[in-house]
Amino acid sequence: MQIEFLGTGAGSPSKQRNVTSTALKLLEERNAIWMFDVGEATQHQVLKTTIRPRKIEKIFITHLHGDHIFGLPGLLSSRSHQGGNGPLTIYGPKGIEDFVKISLKVSETKLGYPLKFVELTDGGVIFNDKTFTVSCEKLDHKIECFGYRIVEHDHPGELQVDKLKALNIPSGPIYGQLKAGKTVNLEDGTSIDGKDYIGKPQQGRVVTILGDTRKSNASVKLAENADVLVHESTFAKGEGRMARNYYHSTSVQAAQVAQKAGAKKLLLTHISARYTGKAAYELAYQVKDIFANTRVVNDLDVIDVPFKG
Amino acid sequence: MQIEFLGTGAGSPSKQRNVTSTALKLLEERNAIWMFDVGEATQHQVLKTTIRPRKIEKIFITHLHGDHIFGLPGLLSSRSHQGGNGPLTIYGPKGIEDFVKISLKVSETKLGYPLKFVELTDGGVIFNDKTFTVSCEKLDHKIECFGYRIVEHDHPGELQVDKLKALNIPSGPIYGQLKAGKTVNLEDGTSIDGKDYIGKPQQGRVVTILGDTRKSNASVKLAENADVLVHESTFAKGEGRMARNYYHSTSVQAAQVAQKAGAKKLLLTHISARYTGKAAYELAYQVKDIFANTRVVNDLDVIDVPFKG
Ligand SMILES: [Zn+2]
Ligand SMILES: [Zn+2]
Repeated sequence: MQIEFLGTGAGSPSKQRNVTSTALKLLEERNAIWMFDVGEATQHQVLKTTIRPRKIEKIFITHLHGDHIFGLPGLLSSRSHQGGNGPLTIYGPKGIEDFVKISLKVSETKLGYPLKFVELTDGGVIFNDKTFTVSCEKLDHKIECFGYRIVEHDHPGELQVDKLKALNIPSGPIYGQLKAGKTVNLEDGTSIDGKDYIGKPQQGRVVTILGDTRKSNASVKLAENADVLVHESTFAKGEGRMARNYYHSTSVQAAQVAQKAGAKKLLLTHISARYTGKAAYELAYQVKDIFANTRVVNDLDVIDVPFKG
Repeated sequence: MQIEFLGTGAGSPSKQRNVTSTALKLLEERNAIWMFDVGEATQHQVLKTTIRPRKIEKIFITHLHGDHIFGLPGLLSSRSHQGGNGPLTIYGPKGIEDFVKISLKVSETKLGYPLKFVELTDGGVIFNDKTFTVSCEKLDHKIECFGYRIVEHDHPGELQVDKLKALNIPSGPIYGQLKAGKTVNLEDGTSIDGKDYIGKPQQGRVVTILGDTRKSNASVKLAENADVLVHESTFAKGEGRMARNYYHSTSVQAAQVAQKAGAKKLLLTHISARYTGKAAYELAYQVKDIFANTRVVNDLDVIDVPFKG
């Protein structure tokens, strides 16, 4: 599991940062990519990565501001041109379906795959399958905006095949029973308890990716014990008033959310073009005393999300 | 007058070429930029040039395929963010107004300038003022598509001030009369005919920028005696059948249009990603016997449009 940042800027594209898009790479977990927001030229950024558009399985839109959605029609078209034929689901606020459908209709674009929309009206679980649960909450932005919490289910412990082989227990249907935690009686009379041969279960990881927002309780809820929290930092320490007026956050507010939620790592994105070079890194430095494990991300940064412990 | 190519590729963006956009730079002529098509990430390409979005006065859309329009909402928004407040007019096929208005509405984008639309239904003159006339014609593409002919009005000859000064004729209202071609009687009895002191008029330039099209008579009409013809070449020599099937042109067909129209220079654009490096230059080389002054343009190429003679 990795997070690849395709665009980390605020408002308009600049030479340093494209407008917002974040890819959650779940290649080992489900051979899929999930995207969060698709600002203009996201497909151009994808060209600079190893991401194959056909692997994009889900797109989560936080809100409908142009710098978060204007790349969507182009990305969807190119996914089709490039032979993508697997279904794709788009989650987002009311209006996202209209925008996409009208863009595709006007341009007479026919997609070679089924496109499904899930328009969000409230917080709660929006997706759940064998491996992941995704929930959302409304944030505090100028227009309706959602944050997402992606929870990987725990991995059950693996059967310790090496140990069993060392005991000369031949592989076969017995292994299945042992893996299920049952006790098996061998022909020689020995009794083996599967539980003794199952490794430690691995705790699933939690990634929280928020949209544009003021500091909010919903953010804390979404980020509870998250392994990684991706939070906007359009403004710097000391600019709380501006942040409030423009419905955004400062670096300090992002750190306070991470700290309160007990998150493990904070990644600051949606960086204003006013902060370039050293000034951008300052955004992380100035919150070290509130939340030490903070980093300002740049376009094309790839961040690993390791298992706990 | 210069033409700057912001995107010269076909269909999808590639690492080498962005999707279509062409800027006609009329900085000396009217302190303005006119754009022809605005594919996705045109505003990103603009960042690499000296073009200021606020100087964009008119945008001409050839047709509504995504690779020609998906950059429009973003460019319009950024023009506003960057302080553009002069009016902007968009010309294009029916549907362009809906696409732009819905994109701006969904994203709650408020532009800080008046935006006007002129939806085209047929060929003819679509703009005319003191310095330029623009006309359009329907081309032959899969969906309704227009080509544009931009005609600069002739520049009247300049009053030859140096000559008059050499005759010790002091500047003043007399100069205005002479410039108007009148005969003026000086106090010393000399009679001076203004026509003798007016330089040669300068013939206005003609630039023809076409959209995607099969070889068509409309193209020839639009390109008649053009100083520069910008023509698509999605396909190469020998691929006439493919070009026909996909409603595009080959390099040879583009050259035939230029030759038949008596154009002075042919610029090939809308180059398929199948042609990179040498293979792209081949497109021009293979038509040298039909139309010698042919060139394949690349992203960010700037081509001067000089006065005749
Ligand atoms: Zn926003
Ligand atoms: Zn087209």
